[in-house]
Formats: sequence, structure tokens, C-alpha cells
Amino acid sequence: MTYDVDAIRRDFPILSREVNGKPLTYLDNGASAQKPQVVIDAITQVYSQEYSNVHRGLHFLSNLATEKYEGVREKVRRFMRAGHEDEIIFTSGTTEAINLVAYSWAMPRLQAGDEIVLSVMEHHANIVPWHFLRERMGVVLKWVDCAPDGSLDPQAVIDAIGPKTKLVAITHMSNVTGTKVDVKTICHAARARGVATLVDGSQAAVHGPIDVVDIGCDFYPITGHKLYGPSGSGAIYIRAERQAEMRPFMGGGDMIDHVSKDVVTYNKPPMKFEAGTPGIVQTIGFGVALDYLESIGMDAIAAHEADIAAYASARLQGLNWLSVQGTSPGKGAIFSFTMEGAHAHDLSTVLDKRGVAVRAGSHCAMPLMEHLGVTATCRASFGMYNTRAEVDTLVDALELCRDFFG
Amino acid sequence: MTYDVDAIRRDFPILSREVNGKPLTYLDNGASAQKPQVVIDAITQVYSQEYSNVHRGLHFLSNLATEKYEGVREKVRRFMRAGHEDEIIFTSGTTEAINLVAYSWAMPRLQAGDEIVLSVMEHHANIVPWHFLRERMGVVLKWVDCAPDGSLDPQAVIDAIGPKTKLVAITHMSNVTGTKVDVKTICHAARARGVATLVDGSQAAVHGPIDVVDIGCDFYPITGHKLYGPSGSGAIYIRAERQAEMRPFMGGGDMIDHVSKDVVTYNKPPMKFEAGTPGIVQTIGFGVALDYLESIGMDAIAAHEADIAAYASARLQGLNWLSVQGTSPGKGAIFSFTMEGAHAHDLSTVLDKRGVAVRAGSHCAMPLMEHLGVTATCRASFGMYNTRAEVDTLVDALELCRDFFG
Repeated sequence: MTYDVDAIRRDFPILSREVNGKPLTYLDNGASAQKPQVVIDAITQVYSQEYSNVHRGLHFLSNLATEKYEGVREKVRRFMRAGHEDEIIFTSGTTEAINLVAYSWAMPRLQAGDEIVLSVMEHHANIVPWHFLRERMGVVLKWVDCAPDGSLDPQAVIDAIGPKTKLVAITHMSNVTGTKVDVKTICHAARARGVATLVDGSQAAVHGPIDVVDIGCDFYPITGHKLYGPSGSGAIYIRAERQAEMRPFMGGGDMIDHVSKDVVTYNKPPMKFEAGTPGIVQTIGFGVALDYLESIGMDAIAAHEADIAAYASARLQGLNWLSVQGTSPGKGAIFSFTMEGAHAHDLSTVLDKRGVAVRAGSHCAMPLMEHLGVTATCRASFGMYNTRAEVDTLVDALELCRDFFG
Repeated sequence: MTYDVDAIRRDFPILSREVNGKPLTYLDNGASAQKPQVVIDAITQVYSQEYSNVHRGLHFLSNLATEKYEGVREKVRRFMRAGHEDEIIFTSGTTEAINLVAYSWAMPRLQAGDEIVLSVMEHHANIVPWHFLRERMGVVLKWVDCAPDGSLDPQAVIDAIGPKTKLVAITHMSNVTGTKVDVKTICHAARARGVATLVDGSQAAVHGPIDVVDIGCDFYPITGHKLYGPSGSGAIYIRAERQAEMRPFMGGGDMIDHVSKDVVTYNKPPMKFEAGTPGIVQTIGFGVALDYLESIGMDAIAAHEADIAAYASARLQGLNWLSVQGTSPGKGAIFSFTMEGAHAHDLSTVLDKRGVAVRAGSHCAMPLMEHLGVTATCRASFGMYNTRAEVDTLVDALELCRDFFG
């Protein structure tokens, strides 16, 4: 089956709109992706005909909503190829997921002087929770730099593991450069040393198949709103053995077994880690987004995006006045760039006038910005619905910038 | 202007549906409320034409989404009559909101032996986060019982405040009995003693006007999905002086000012307490729900529900085989009841066959269940769109239960 990108584009209503009098060229997928009609319809359907709170009701609508909501757990399990659906915890996104790991697993287990190994490419969501442990408990952060082409040597990460290392927390794909990291090699080496591993899948899971068992990680968060699902949706895979080491994060309904004035006992995972009324409709919509991705096939999406990445790489390299950050082999279709004489914010404003939506700033990755010696970049990040023609539109708009600022 | 409940009902598409061949009588509003068409339409509109991540983009869609999202802060401020919109923090609901207070304000400030005063009527969301502090830090929970009619004497709460009390955490309205608490008297007395106050507004804010400045509390969470808004939405009022005492809760994007390998500095409130990509579309929909409520008027809603409460009280009292929990003056339209010889779950199943959706269980309020000497109740909780005719439907269905189980 060929990949029919035009048909896919028609599934996303927003892609037909204009911005500033030009067709929208949406290249801000690294920040958040657009939603297919099936996801929008599913949300409308639930709110119009099927809505209720979940778990604690016995009436028809509550049972219906619970069935739809809980059915998503198996969809997420299958998407990540986890062993058991109880290893899937629903979250509001990767930020909450990593904070869950920091508060529930790391905080009660780590001590002053214990080390967490990070790469310089991490997103703030995979940095700031560990800074909390440094500030509050004296945990030490050990940083591994990337190479000039943006690649990360897995051996350098493994070499950073010492006797006091308790966790390696590494991105699977940089949200700035698109660098893919050989997390499997890292996780297997860490496990052999008894060290836990968190792989930030917020970007990587969007662009190709994921197998958390094969990777061998302990924690793997994914972000619903980047996966073409609703805002405020997400999940994290937590290996059962690690769940057993975790205390609860947030307290409230659903996560308890029994509450009295004097004591509280907790529910079994995954409920133990899901307090209060969850994001019912977002999670149901997230499941529909995963069904949609499955119907296209993550392998097919990866192949399409590899073509876009190669084409965009070649075209952007042809602009010798443009500085592109990160050229590691096999990188994803995420391109950060700067242009001498123009601030990234001004570049993005000119691109926006041509209908091209890119992000400008530090992309929640200030340590990487510092490592790259820039304060801000423009970032064009592609998704399943982007085309070669949109790469051309980007390049044409950049050439206008060149004329304007050059 | 008269309150046109039929017109209001037409605004909620789900209320036209049938359940088990009967018109839906939705009396599970205490768990979650249904959504008016304007909220559903707003969600569809954003996802179809206006969606993007917020704050960190400069392109057209990002600016549009940011404007709509941030515009909700003023709507929430006005709804709660807070002094400044920076005192409004967006959350995924009241559970997250109270955990924010526990982790960010209480955990770094309280010590072993310090006391938190709670009523026995609290929801688990306003109990379990404090149990965490008991378990982890030796904080002492001091409980205040309610009277046999379900009322809570404010003086009993004030009398429970001692020299080691650091926080009074009290519901504004019981989710089990509908009891309204004179939180203003409590909060003013607590403030005079230098004690912080959290008022759980998850129920009360749905049923009448709220004025957090008049109440004099420090923390006041509200729940979007109970306020006819999307699931996964909510907010908490935090008085500026208390914000200044708080450290961040979750770490990630948006809540930082600067991140390096060695140090992190934090953004100003409210952003300091909102990490990562927020619930963009839920919050926008929440704002539309608040606009909708404002267009009807919270005073008008309160008056309508007072009529329903009085009518339901009278009709339920006529069923001398039914045991109704809580009869305090001025209580809201929430009725928990039991029937000898029938388990609450069985009652709710029979009611469901008549299209009547009620909740059965402990309603996330096990200490109150224990205090009342029951393990579970059925709960009929009314909202702005419920009618006297629906009270009659409930009573008719209960009479069927009586025939069936009696």
C-alpha cells in the first residue's frame, strides 16, 4: 500500500485553512500535532451522547465511559509493545509522567550524592524534575554532551554510569535536532549494572514504532497531543518491577483502597498512580488517535518522514547562509536553524507571513542551546501529514528571509 | 427574567437521549456534569481551525491559541471574584490542585507534630494528600465531626485550631450530604490566628456564587468538569501571599525562567506552578462553560437548585422506608440515601433501568461513611438542568425499588 499523504491531509481539517492569506504550512509538530477528524468526532460523540465520570458509577453512562476509557490502556500497551496493560499509567502528558517518576520513584529512593545521568539534549521536562532532587536532596546530575553533528554516543552515556548512579534519563529523540539515540544499547548496559532507565519518548514515539521491552527501559512516557491526540492526554510505561518500588504521587479518589481518619491504604497499579477524576475524554480521544496511527502504520509513517527528512536536509543544506543544527545519521524530520543577522523570532515572523508555522526560541532545551552556542533557533518539525511541497514552501520563505535580512 | 429550565436542557445534547429505553434522568452531577453545546462546539472549533501549542510559539495559530487560553484566567478570576488573575492557577481538577498545595506549600513548610484540621466530611482529594504528610513527615491530622443532621459547626472547627495548627482544610459543600459549611467564619478566625485555609470548592462553586476574597481563604480549588466544562479542566485560587511561600510542584517547560546544567531559576506565578504543555483545549472549553454559567447567572442557578432541593427533600422525606443522610438547613441539592434490605449498588441498578443515573458507593468520602455508620449510599445529585419532574421520576423509581426489595 502506498502512503497517500493527500488522503491523510484531508483527515485533518485544520490543514485546509489559510493563515495570513496563504495555505497553512504547519511545521510546529514538535510542539504539538494537529488532530484528525476521527479524534474530533470521538470527543464530540462522548460529550454529546456518552459522557459520565468513570470507575465509581454503576449506571449505564458511567459503565459506557469507563469501558471506553479503560479500553485505551490496551491500545497504549499495544502501541508501545509493553508486556501488560497494568504497566500503562495515564497522564496529562510527558511532563506529568516524568514528575511522577521523580516524586514517586526517585524521591523516596535516592540520597544525597546519588547520581542521575542525563544528556545535554534533554527537554526541560526531563531536566527540571531532576534539578528538584538536586536542590532538595543533594542528588548529583551528570551530563553527557553530544557530538558536533548532534549525535549522542551511547558508550559515553554508559561510561558516565558510576557506582552512585541510580538513574539514566535520556531522550529517544531530540526535540531540537531530531537526533535519534541508541537507547537500547544504553538501557541494556544500565540494567546490567542495576541502574534504572527513563527514556523520554515524547518525540520518538510520534515518528516510528516503539518497543519498550526491546529497548529494555524502566520508564517510557509518551505525549498524546504530539501523537495527534487531544491536549492533556498521555501515558507512561512503567515496568512492573519499578512500579513495586514506587509510592503514590498524587492523593485522592481512585488511587486508594481504604481511607480512614488514621490510615490510608492504596489501590493496586495502575490505579495507585492515577488520582481523582482522570482526563476521561482526552484519553478516549487519545485511543482513537492511536487507532488512526495504527491504521496508517507506524512503519509507513516512519518511511514517509524519512523521505521528508532526506529531502529537507538536502534542500536546507543548499542554503549556505543558513546554519542547521544537527546532522547526525538517521535523524528525524526536525530541523533547527539560525541565520546570521536575523533573530530566530524575526525569522519565524517572516515565515508566518507566508503561512509557515515554525517555532522560535530555546525549545525548552536551554542546556543544549548553551552547548550549541546559540540563544535561540527556528525549528521546523515535520509530521505524518507534511509533504515535499511544504519543504519547498519553507525553503522559498527562507529565501525571502535571506532577501529581507541578508 | 424567569429561569427557563427547558431552554437550558435543550443546550445539553445528552439530556435528550434515552437510557435503557427511558429518557435519561441524569442525577450524577456530583461526580461530573454534562456539557452544553457551546462547550462542545468550542472544542470542535479549536481542534478544527485554531489549534496549536501555547506560549512558546510566535506564529499565527500559536498566538491565537495562547490568547484564547490565557483569556480564561480572567474569566476564572471573575467567577471566583479573586483580586488578580495571577492568583488563578490552571489545573486538571481539584485533585491536582490540592496536591499542588500539599507538595508546594505544605511539604516544605510543615514539620513533624504540626497539625492540619479537617472535617470528617472531606472528599478523599482533601484527605489523602494530607495523609501523605502524616505518613512521610509526621504531620498530625485533627478531625472535626459533623452533627447528626450533617451540619458542621464552624466554632468546632475554630476550636480545633491549636498552637501547632498550620492549615485548616475544609469543604465548602459536602459531596455526600450537600451540607454547606460556613467557611467564611472559619477562614476569618483562622487568618486571625495566622493559620492558612484551604476551602475545597469542588461542589460549592457549581451551585452558587463564590467570592474568595469575602470568604477570606488562601486556597480555593474548583473543578471544570463539574462546572459543565471539559474533563481534565480546573483551577485553583491561591492568594498572592501564599504563592510567595510556595516552591514549584511539577518541573518542566513554561515554569522556568532559566535552566542550565547546574542551576534552574523559576518563572513568576502563575506560570511557576504550571509545568509543560497545559490542557489547552480543556481550559478554553472551561472558559466557555464559565461564560455560559455567567449568561444564566449563578444566583439564578442557586435559586433554581434551592427549589429543586426543597422539593426533593419533601418528596424523599415522604418515603419513610428510605434513610436520607444529612438534613442541615440550606443544604444543596445532593441527597444520599440507603434503604434497609437493599444494597446501594442494587438500588442504583434498579434506578438505572428506569433511566435514572445515580451514584452508589462511598463517594470518595470513607471517613464520613464510617461516621454515618454506613458502608455505601446511593446519591442523587442535581444540577442546573434538573427539574421537579425528574425528582418525581426518581421517587417513582425508588418506589419500584421498595416493591422489589421491600
